[in-house]
Amino acid sequence: MNYVQGVAKDVAIAYIGGGSKDWAWGLMSDLADEEKMSGTVRLYDIDFESAVNNEIIGNSLYDRAEVKGKWRYKAVKTIEEALIGADFVIISIIPGPLKTMESDIHIPEKYGIYQSVGDTVGPGGFFRALRATPIYIEFANKIKECCHLAWVINYTNPMTICTRILYEVFPGIKAFGCCHEVFSTQMLLADVLYEMKGIKNIPREEIKVKVMGINHFTWIEKASYGGIDILPLYKEFVGRYFDEGYVDTRQKIREPEEALYFGCANRVKFDLFRRYGLIAAAGDRHLAEFVPFWYLRNPAEVADWKFALTPMSYRYKVQELRNAKSKKLAAGEEKVELKKTGEEGVNQMKALMGFGDLVTNVNLPNRGQLEGFPENAVVETNALFSKNGVQPILAGKFPDDIKNLIMRHVINQETILTAAIKKDKKLAFNVFINDPLVNIPLKDAKALFKEMFDNTKEYLPGWEI
Amino acid sequence: MNYVQGVAKDVAIAYIGGGSKDWAWGLMSDLADEEKMSGTVRLYDIDFESAVNNEIIGNSLYDRAEVKGKWRYKAVKTIEEALIGADFVIISIIPGPLKTMESDIHIPEKYGIYQSVGDTVGPGGFFRALRATPIYIEFANKIKECCHLAWVINYTNPMTICTRILYEVFPGIKAFGCCHEVFSTQMLLADVLYEMKGIKNIPREEIKVKVMGINHFTWIEKASYGGIDILPLYKEFVGRYFDEGYVDTRQKIREPEEALYFGCANRVKFDLFRRYGLIAAAGDRHLAEFVPFWYLRNPAEVADWKFALTPMSYRYKVQELRNAKSKKLAAGEEKVELKKTGEEGVNQMKALMGFGDLVTNVNLPNRGQLEGFPENAVVETNALFSKNGVQPILAGKFPDDIKNLIMRHVINQETILTAAIKKDKKLAFNVFINDPLVNIPLKDAKALFKEMFDNTKEYLPGWEI
Amino acid sequence: MNYVQGVAKDVAIAYIGGGSKDWAWGLMSDLADEEKMSGTVRLYDIDFESAVNNEIIGNSLYDRAEVKGKWRYKAVKTIEEALIGADFVIISIIPGPLKTMESDIHIPEKYGIYQSVGDTVGPGGFFRALRATPIYIEFANKIKECCHLAWVINYTNPMTICTRILYEVFPGIKAFGCCHEVFSTQMLLADVLYEMKGIKNIPREEIKVKVMGINHFTWIEKASYGGIDILPLYKEFVGRYFDEGYVDTRQKIREPEEALYFGCANRVKFDLFRRYGLIAAAGDRHLAEFVPFWYLRNPAEVADWKFALTPMSYRYKVQELRNAKSKKLAAGEEKVELKKTGEEGVNQMKALMGFGDLVTNVNLPNRGQLEGFPENAVVETNALFSKNGVQPILAGKFPDDIKNLIMRHVINQETILTAAIKKDKKLAFNVFINDPLVNIPLKDAKALFKEMFDNTKEYLPGWEI
Amino acid sequence: MNYVQGVAKDVAIAYIGGGSKDWAWGLMSDLADEEKMSGTVRLYDIDFESAVNNEIIGNSLYDRAEVKGKWRYKAVKTIEEALIGADFVIISIIPGPLKTMESDIHIPEKYGIYQSVGDTVGPGGFFRALRATPIYIEFANKIKECCHLAWVINYTNPMTICTRILYEVFPGIKAFGCCHEVFSTQMLLADVLYEMKGIKNIPREEIKVKVMGINHFTWIEKASYGGIDILPLYKEFVGRYFDEGYVDTRQKIREPEEALYFGCANRVKFDLFRRYGLIAAAGDRHLAEFVPFWYLRNPAEVADWKFALTPMSYRYKVQELRNAKSKKLAAGEEKVELKKTGEEGVNQMKALMGFGDLVTNVNLPNRGQLEGFPENAVVETNALFSKNGVQPILAGKFPDDIKNLIMRHVINQETILTAAIKKDKKLAFNVFINDPLVNIPLKDAKALFKEMFDNTKEYLPGWEI
Repeated sequence: MNYVQGVAKDVAIAYIGGGSKDWAWGLMSDLADEEKMSGTVRLYDIDFESAVNNEIIGNSLYDRAEVKGKWRYKAVKTIEEALIGADFVIISIIPGPLKTMESDIHIPEKYGIYQSVGDTVGPGGFFRALRATPIYIEFANKIKECCHLAWVINYTNPMTICTRILYEVFPGIKAFGCCHEVFSTQMLLADVLYEMKGIKNIPREEIKVKVMGINHFTWIEKASYGGIDILPLYKEFVGRYFDEGYVDTRQKIREPEEALYFGCANRVKFDLFRRYGLIAAAGDRHLAEFVPFWYLRNPAEVADWKFALTPMSYRYKVQELRNAKSKKLAAGEEKVELKKTGEEGVNQMKALMGFGDLVTNVNLPNRGQLEGFPENAVVETNALFSKNGVQPILAGKFPDDIKNLIMRHVINQETILTAAIKKDKKLAFNVFINDPLVNIPLKDAKALFKEMFDNTKEYLPGWEI
Repeated sequence: MNYVQGVAKDVAIAYIGGGSKDWAWGLMSDLADEEKMSGTVRLYDIDFESAVNNEIIGNSLYDRAEVKGKWRYKAVKTIEEALIGADFVIISIIPGPLKTMESDIHIPEKYGIYQSVGDTVGPGGFFRALRATPIYIEFANKIKECCHLAWVINYTNPMTICTRILYEVFPGIKAFGCCHEVFSTQMLLADVLYEMKGIKNIPREEIKVKVMGINHFTWIEKASYGGIDILPLYKEFVGRYFDEGYVDTRQKIREPEEALYFGCANRVKFDLFRRYGLIAAAGDRHLAEFVPFWYLRNPAEVADWKFALTPMSYRYKVQELRNAKSKKLAAGEEKVELKKTGEEGVNQMKALMGFGDLVTNVNLPNRGQLEGFPENAVVETNALFSKNGVQPILAGKFPDDIKNLIMRHVINQETILTAAIKKDKKLAFNVFINDPLVNIPLKDAKALFKEMFDNTKEYLPGWEI
Repeated sequence: MNYVQGVAKDVAIAYIGGGSKDWAWGLMSDLADEEKMSGTVRLYDIDFESAVNNEIIGNSLYDRAEVKGKWRYKAVKTIEEALIGADFVIISIIPGPLKTMESDIHIPEKYGIYQSVGDTVGPGGFFRALRATPIYIEFANKIKECCHLAWVINYTNPMTICTRILYEVFPGIKAFGCCHEVFSTQMLLADVLYEMKGIKNIPREEIKVKVMGINHFTWIEKASYGGIDILPLYKEFVGRYFDEGYVDTRQKIREPEEALYFGCANRVKFDLFRRYGLIAAAGDRHLAEFVPFWYLRNPAEVADWKFALTPMSYRYKVQELRNAKSKKLAAGEEKVELKKTGEEGVNQMKALMGFGDLVTNVNLPNRGQLEGFPENAVVETNALFSKNGVQPILAGKFPDDIKNLIMRHVINQETILTAAIKKDKKLAFNVFINDPLVNIPLKDAKALFKEMFDNTKEYLPGWEI
Repeated sequence: MNYVQGVAKDVAIAYIGGGSKDWAWGLMSDLADEEKMSGTVRLYDIDFESAVNNEIIGNSLYDRAEVKGKWRYKAVKTIEEALIGADFVIISIIPGPLKTMESDIHIPEKYGIYQSVGDTVGPGGFFRALRATPIYIEFANKIKECCHLAWVINYTNPMTICTRILYEVFPGIKAFGCCHEVFSTQMLLADVLYEMKGIKNIPREEIKVKVMGINHFTWIEKASYGGIDILPLYKEFVGRYFDEGYVDTRQKIREPEEALYFGCANRVKFDLFRRYGLIAAAGDRHLAEFVPFWYLRNPAEVADWKFALTPMSYRYKVQELRNAKSKKLAAGEEKVELKKTGEEGVNQMKALMGFGDLVTNVNLPNRGQLEGFPENAVVETNALFSKNGVQPILAGKFPDDIKNLIMRHVINQETILTAAIKKDKKLAFNVFINDPLVNIPLKDAKALFKEMFDNTKEYLPGWEI
């Protein structure tokens, strides 16, 4: 990377999972819109063909007139080729093929356990974490070896565990984890401001939020827009919509099927607010999995709270659609649509290069930013991004009632880390049965654990099965 | 108190709950056997008549030949009379009459919640804590006012909350909480040594244990007798008795009814050992309430694990028998049986007066003795008792899987403290529904909470009902 | 305060020390330049006449055309009149008249102790802290009583102690301490950028610095301007100017006498950088007092390091000039010069009202922002100012060699707090003799302590003299 | 090691520095007096001949009638032979020959720095620490490799650094550091009890002390004998003897020359008590080096406080006497005198084998036993020794005034560790000049540092000289 007249040239980005559909195209679009930086994106993926497709797609942007940020894309066959000399590393993968997620989500249903997402906590999140562990251990080692000064952005779930492993293996790593769930909540608050105050079209970044918690179970303690304190407005809004729920603007524009399988009416979020006084800042499908004893006991309860259990059938369908689109884009039959994704990756990279400070929420090891939680556990709070630095901003402490809901998962996640690194099956089972979703008799839990292990054992190398 | 030729004279003990049956007689017996100290025990009780009975009973010992420790007993009408000038304060009360315990234990059963004891955690422990709070706030204030340098020994349950309140209200208090559950585990280990090594009649004090946890959910990480490490023996013992269970010597001598309603076969303890590798050091009835999802889902599960759900009917019966005995003792128709109780109160007082150091387990605010747990939360570990000092001994840290089982209760107890002091009903409900025993739908939990509140509201002054 | 169409009206500012010269006029000027807010400034001062003068001076701005921020000024006779209903409280006082500072600075010289400033640490800072204590205890109590939700900005030295007392007395206070020493260092870095890179006129705010330490002994670990990392440039710059020193632009414009008595050639700052690798971010006169054994052993050593020992004679002269100017301004013979002071008070207030986030360095109780230092001790780091919130940004930890230089003062300051609140003379002496400036035989230290105490006893009510 | 009928047989002790004179003979004597254990002591020393002498001397005890503990002694040529299979490791060495100590102590005198001992802090302790570092790194690695479960007792100075390195290199080590300075203070308190209460011949173990601090700068907060609180008596005693000083019984029996060069009149200890209220628990020669600005400015001040600056000439003489005695003992011309040394090593080993708990003071990494001090720094407090465990006992916190005196050294020692491991000369100098004994101009300090480095460079392998 070189700074030339206030602009960064020859920036090298390693994109792990660079054959990704959809998400990769969004990054291309965001990079294209930013004139402060240019360089090369090295695309690495275990599915090399997809990476090659993205190379073609990405390079097709270079000469388009409206493109301000000029980037070359290059598919590479080894992770080392991607990493050596990289300034930034983006990791966005799926730990195991979709069929492993089939086991994560639908096997537990046989035992009476329902998961709305299944990628964070619960039996699904648990096995996904086990699968991600050897992969992320390798990433951390390779980064240490090839580009120890690079900034690493993780987008993979389970976010907490993935980010945690990077630091466990290479404590000097400069990594952070990013998720857009809080952004959606900011958009909901924009709806609130419109409804209660008539202010239209507020960009979500202008709604300032004090974020604290863990990924997918973050909470907003304070929210404001200019001089306006949003919490009293939100309280009134919740009172108005609690019974029927409220489908926010961002969701309204969804395809019917997406709405059916990914949607919610924010009733879980509203209920948590009424009982705890803070705004839970993730979609209801995520929130419910952390406190399933209130919302996820069975499909009827889910229906009552008006959120969706996303089935694998729909995920398979989405995958097919994306594959088809990838082919068209690579063949030049379709053009990448250039529009901002709303993700913050490019802005974060800009800030890290010195082009303007940025305050936003990220996942980082706890160094005290979340008081009362274990050191090193990965937590989500606001942080200040500046030239070559990300400093967490002190979030203070939770009231004890919320703290306890979160702490259970934090210690579970710390335990998963240990179990997954040591491949300690006894410890793994002890944390598995302490997940609130695994609220079934001990014998059933043992059977479920065994079945899920057996289903996915080829992705769990070295475990005694 | 005066030291005269290596003996303490004129020691003043304030006994709050001094009308107690059974337990008070045990203290009398222990004091009678100790020649290093003598003085006066002031008996204060809201049931003054019982205190007067104990005055008569206690004083009847004075002239018995076999009595080495000479004490005068005196029933007093106000707590101030008991406290002013006291060197030691013993607190052993019941927060609310037995009928409140009826509500604590049997109302939750209507909602499918079963409690084996009901005085520590769960709905029963929770409401007992709320009732104990105003009482203990008063105790703390009175002690501060009347005898701020006195050592205070608490025996009342819920132990954690009661001890915690004393420190919250009067941070300079010199209080600690004592419980004999660990002693019973030491006796079980004596059985183990007999069975595995043929060593008979080991006094439980000679079995050295490293204790850590919270009251009624303490764990033993190391246990030894002389040069013998007991854990490997225990492991083999558990293997031998896991299926059928093992009724220990201490329990074998019980009356049949007591055995039926208070007994256990240590199967819960054995199961926890097999899964977690440490010895849970309380009776199964207590242990199960902390992890009810494995042992306490319903009476059949309880039967399977071979422990008892103590019914109120039996508690009433015991109460009547004790009342009858009290009358006989006071009337001189029966004599107090002089035998050591095995409790450590008198030994602790001796150590605090400088007559020999003592290491034993007690409940104290966490100052770091239990790593990873919140400061000030009351925890149970070993401590060194010496002349005018009780210093916790560092217990180190739990493995994360056990830590998480305990932490949930620790934070709940901290929250109960706040809710009970502020009389904050919303917060109280939030902690109530986070108890693992309250594993019922949200609506049912609300109904149960309301019903239990209404049942016991006369003991909850100042709460908005 | 009311928000009306994106502007704050009827803002109430309580100005304690509102009769201040110079500094008050700067605030007036800054307020006049800010169109987002308007309201009233209540001027409270023990010298009421000065406050009245400032009322006249402040109100004279209202109708000037170039004034964008419209404020009314009002001298009040009681602190309560200033505080009740205040949105902001500014405190800028001198603890004791100038003659007490005469004792602070010149008496120690008799014992061979030289102080360049004498208001922060050393014998002078120590006695100034003792005098400030009863005053700040009263401020804290009055604020709690009259305007507990107000934001409080402290400018008084000793900054650390004054801010610390506010929190000790009223833990819920929303106070922070501000100092411009870091700003001067930013200006020096602007000089560096000009010299090394030819970039002119960089506003100091655009030089981003990572600040950590305690007031007047803060350090900069990272500094950047856009994509430029400044530390390597600074290293070269120091190499170039170490021997002769460097008088920065900001100092060059000073009057000769001011330069003589307040100036420095940054040689202390350069020496600390060469030995410790971080940029000490305060003027040399302040820095030297924290590590006097290297720079302040005697006037010759001071001359060698090219900084000044500010004499009282010059402070008296400045005071007279300001008094004269005050009269002229109040009489309308002279007009307030409207120009930005470079202080951040007004920007901070704007941010707290929700008009744009701000990151800057402030003094706050340590909640973990400065790792390895005691909780509650007041430290200086960056913080995020946003709508009704100031959150410290995690600064991480110092290398142990610098940490030790700072820690000694931090613990001393904590001890001063205790001694000053308890009026404990023995403890006070113990901390007095642990200040590195008090590097004299024990007997001399006792004599000095006594003499300084006697000199200023009328400002130390309640102490046993 | 085998337990046979309540006795430990075949205990293997590795003695590093096993050619030691005097100290080794004391250990032999203590082992000979203990019937609970027997086995082999492997003597390893870089001076193999001395080890062989001790083999002969040690084995000569075996058949003596009064010997209860039967041990074989064996000189070995490699450290591995000593360590493999060891149950206990004793380390008692001198880091560098006596001539290095000549540099440690007498070179600083040229610069006006006087050290009474020179093995703990100050320029002498500093260079001794640098020399000990590579040696202790090797010890730690060898112990990890050869006998990772062994208990390791360190007696070498600088105690803090040596113990600290063991844990830094091998965090799982079971090591602790022992020193008898506190024992001497207990003996002084026995004198106090005799003088004030007429109680004779109290064994020092029966004087219970609450110990806290760092080695050679420990403090006693509470001291009692049976029911007697000693601090009020000590206060009166100090009042009586402050001016003239008091030579305690233990010192009175010394040879005149030893008294001259090693003695003190406890005036430093008394002065610290008068000013700080706690009993400093080390000899004055050690204490003064931690706070030299009050006691060690020059020889006249030392004389005034009535303690000694031990000269190398006397140390050489002692060495010669011991060498001569060693020869006689090995030649059978003299017999080892069997008498208890008063050291606790053998008792500690007994306790670790399960033969009775023991509470005594030891040096261990801080895990919270000394509140407010950095984790991992080696501190000295009481600990409970039991079967295979040493658990620190919580000592609480110091008042801030004493805390600050200690903290400076604690952080210095942490910094020395880093500098010595990294061989970072810049950092080394930064900590060197922060020692309170190095109270000389910066230039002189640089010259002294260089001179001492040059003098001992052959013992500082790998440093850039």
